[in-house]
Amino acid sequence: MSESIQALRQSFRSYVKKMKSYGEALDVMYWDLRTGAPRKGVEARSEVIGELSAEMFKMSVSSEMGRFLEQLSEPGVFEQLDAVDRKLVEECKKEYDRSIKIPPDKYQAYVVLTSQAESVWEEAKEKADFAMFQPYLEKIVAANREFIELWGYAGHPYNTLLDMYEPGMTTQKLDQLFADVRAKLVPLVAAIGQSSNVPDTAFLRQTFDVTQQKAFSLYILKELGYDFEAGRLDESVHPFATGLNPGDVRITTRYLPHDVTSALFGTIHECGHALYEQNISQELIGTPLCTGTSMGIHESQSRFWENMVGRSRTFWKRYYPKLQELYPDRFEGVSVDSFYDAINVVQPSLIRIEADELTYNLHIMIRYEIEKKLFDGSLRVADLPAYWNEKYKEYLGVVPAHDGEGVLQDVHWAGGAFGYFPSYSLGNMYSAQIRSTMEKQLGDLDDLVDRGEFSAVKTWLVEKIYRHGKLLTPNEIVEGVTGEPLNPEYLLDYLGKKYGDIYNLN
Amino acid sequence: MSESIQALRQSFRSYVKKMKSYGEALDVMYWDLRTGAPRKGVEARSEVIGELSAEMFKMSVSSEMGRFLEQLSEPGVFEQLDAVDRKLVEECKKEYDRSIKIPPDKYQAYVVLTSQAESVWEEAKEKADFAMFQPYLEKIVAANREFIELWGYAGHPYNTLLDMYEPGMTTQKLDQLFADVRAKLVPLVAAIGQSSNVPDTAFLRQTFDVTQQKAFSLYILKELGYDFEAGRLDESVHPFATGLNPGDVRITTRYLPHDVTSALFGTIHECGHALYEQNISQELIGTPLCTGTSMGIHESQSRFWENMVGRSRTFWKRYYPKLQELYPDRFEGVSVDSFYDAINVVQPSLIRIEADELTYNLHIMIRYEIEKKLFDGSLRVADLPAYWNEKYKEYLGVVPAHDGEGVLQDVHWAGGAFGYFPSYSLGNMYSAQIRSTMEKQLGDLDDLVDRGEFSAVKTWLVEKIYRHGKLLTPNEIVEGVTGEPLNPEYLLDYLGKKYGDIYNLN
Repeated sequence: MSESIQALRQSFRSYVKKMKSYGEALDVMYWDLRTGAPRKGVEARSEVIGELSAEMFKMSVSSEMGRFLEQLSEPGVFEQLDAVDRKLVEECKKEYDRSIKIPPDKYQAYVVLTSQAESVWEEAKEKADFAMFQPYLEKIVAANREFIELWGYAGHPYNTLLDMYEPGMTTQKLDQLFADVRAKLVPLVAAIGQSSNVPDTAFLRQTFDVTQQKAFSLYILKELGYDFEAGRLDESVHPFATGLNPGDVRITTRYLPHDVTSALFGTIHECGHALYEQNISQELIGTPLCTGTSMGIHESQSRFWENMVGRSRTFWKRYYPKLQELYPDRFEGVSVDSFYDAINVVQPSLIRIEADELTYNLHIMIRYEIEKKLFDGSLRVADLPAYWNEKYKEYLGVVPAHDGEGVLQDVHWAGGAFGYFPSYSLGNMYSAQIRSTMEKQLGDLDDLVDRGEFSAVKTWLVEKIYRHGKLLTPNEIVEGVTGEPLNPEYLLDYLGKKYGDIYNLN
Repeated sequence: MSESIQALRQSFRSYVKKMKSYGEALDVMYWDLRTGAPRKGVEARSEVIGELSAEMFKMSVSSEMGRFLEQLSEPGVFEQLDAVDRKLVEECKKEYDRSIKIPPDKYQAYVVLTSQAESVWEEAKEKADFAMFQPYLEKIVAANREFIELWGYAGHPYNTLLDMYEPGMTTQKLDQLFADVRAKLVPLVAAIGQSSNVPDTAFLRQTFDVTQQKAFSLYILKELGYDFEAGRLDESVHPFATGLNPGDVRITTRYLPHDVTSALFGTIHECGHALYEQNISQELIGTPLCTGTSMGIHESQSRFWENMVGRSRTFWKRYYPKLQELYPDRFEGVSVDSFYDAINVVQPSLIRIEADELTYNLHIMIRYEIEKKLFDGSLRVADLPAYWNEKYKEYLGVVPAHDGEGVLQDVHWAGGAFGYFPSYSLGNMYSAQIRSTMEKQLGDLDDLVDRGEFSAVKTWLVEKIYRHGKLLTPNEIVEGVTGEPLNPEYLLDYLGKKYGDIYNLN
């Protein structure tokens, strides 16, 4: 590499690192706001966040960034770069090309709009008043449709939104994936509904001392290999994980006094996200590649640890005695098998975030159908509540009593995060497919869990997925690991076996 | 005000607000590092802090800032500004004039030097090895002497350092203040040493459950009027207060299992700092005037609440029963008067931060004498340990066994914070003088405390001091409140009466 290219590369790296510094500062402030920042300081803090976000955005579309990308993309230069620098140039260019197309005043107005919309949504949900939220949602959809025109798109307009969360994903692929899943899932859910085996879950809803719940969450985190020297566990209204850098990946959970598993599975879910981010290669630190490659792959890891490990029978053979020890008088006469059945009960319901592992995918498909229609113009915002209720009836057999438990339940749309929902189901599909390869190489997962060999599981995932951060695309990851593109059959196979067993369907 | 001046003023305000935003982001990150950030993320975090600090410094000396200050300082413009804008221009100009004189590479090198020196100091203190720290301290002193030449000074070179923490303070004033204090304090300490009344303190050093200590700290904070909607209490190795904005002023303390008062008095001390910052006028938010006017006035408030309120007899008449309730078997046979005597025991000692209210001032005077000599060149860094020990012998009658409990005990010099120490004693003087005026207007403080009328005390302090932030100078504050410049007689009078009573000296 010539000295001048070396110098150019260095300057670019410094520039990118500075941007990433703003990102970490912002992430610390968001974390802080969600884990106990005092109420009266929130307004001033929002302005601080606004100032730094604007600065970071400016840097991402500055003429300086434009020059870096132009010079580094020249074939004679680009081919001299190593893999990390190449990917870095590509990622920054993708971001630059998107952002530069949106006029700054439109972007600014959109940021203000979504920020206001989130407050309005909160109140509208509380009051179950869709009309209150409707004008905001209409503006947000309109703005996104305008952005899509500016960005351009191939195939369906919605594709360009999908690509933001799952690079390379399209409606064409998703239509097929979801059709396959739905074809097997709907009859499976119906069969479960007719099964005579209805797990008893009443014992999960007693009073459970929160201090003990916390102790148990911390204990399980240690067992799973979460590194407490590179993270911490706090409390927040909605559990989340935030990777400031691989040495500082924090998670939160929420302890409910009348629900012994909510905090625990929240913890394990976020632990999955955190194991991913704690184990990204050091060489990616200080770059935008130091994160998960997509929301789908990220969710595959949270769901792998939460559902395939944490909701497995062998996991509870191992840890149920510990839980019983913490609550000596709460599980009398409840066998580990009854406990296992109870934490895996299937029940079509209205609220996505409370849904079981199986019906969860149906909640996602409804949102996917709606988003697709909003962006090809075949569904108006005003008609959303009716369409929502109709779909819930069709897919899940339940109808919301009001919009608060219906169309208003999720915050995503208020924040403009269209295209995000499919990640959750993609995560389920990815995790089952990855698990299948893992078992070919390491042996049966249930056996590994039975023996507490989480370290072997983690090491395998670090090697195959975590260390790469965003250096590989989701498709490169899944094909690299499993030898084929995303295939929903693994998920269907896994769900069929697991729930067939619990509900005696065979 | 003309439209063009109005526009100029607005742009300046936006510019200043942006700088302040960086300041808040940095303060959140410092708070986070000191209250439990994971160890492995510290290195990456330091780089983030470095990037944002550098950016903030650049803004403070930018040509844009230079133009703002030049245009706004023009007499025809300046006279049209209101009091807040005027003060803002003056403050930014003071900062600009100082910073612009230091070549950026020298400043950068100094930041690196002090950052390294703090790590070296930590190890040197641990090992009681002054020689290890000496070369760093020599460089820091040399750099400061060079800066002083670049900044310029009036009278003693040390004056320009004093002014950074206590605007308007000089060695001429301090020599007189400290001479007055020392003349009465040294004989008072001697008389106490010969008193037959030696308070028993053994009962303070039993085991005290930390959860209860925390509950008591929280209880007292509420009693004193600390606003928990505008702050929070956390734990850190060294207690501190940080005012992110008036709606978010956080404090920390440290719970020692074998010391029931350490955490409590730490909490009350930081509460004093916090009451100040929580009550700064809203109109100063987003400006550098939204902070205490000087370290001396700030310390006057922490010390007022800690010592004059928290270590008073009436305070414990009120709260001792509550403490006894929390620890039913720890204070048997200990009367409230014995408890009061114990928490006010006077004992010349080696460590500043553990010193009692009275001898504390002698620790400060030693450091003041040393700093003065370092900057007029009459004391070499190499001779510091011997000089330190000699002074401790002379002022306090004690001699350190090693430099770890001697010259290496404080972090201040490693960080280059010369001129800071006098603030602590100035705080004591200010607080006694302000108290005297308060009592003329509100009645005896002990009576107010006896009746739990903390709200009246706080309201008075908000009106006289807190709300003004940095809009008034320390001297304007003290003269405005008390009608005279700083006068140490109030402190001496207060200490004489309080300790004369405890030790039966009259």
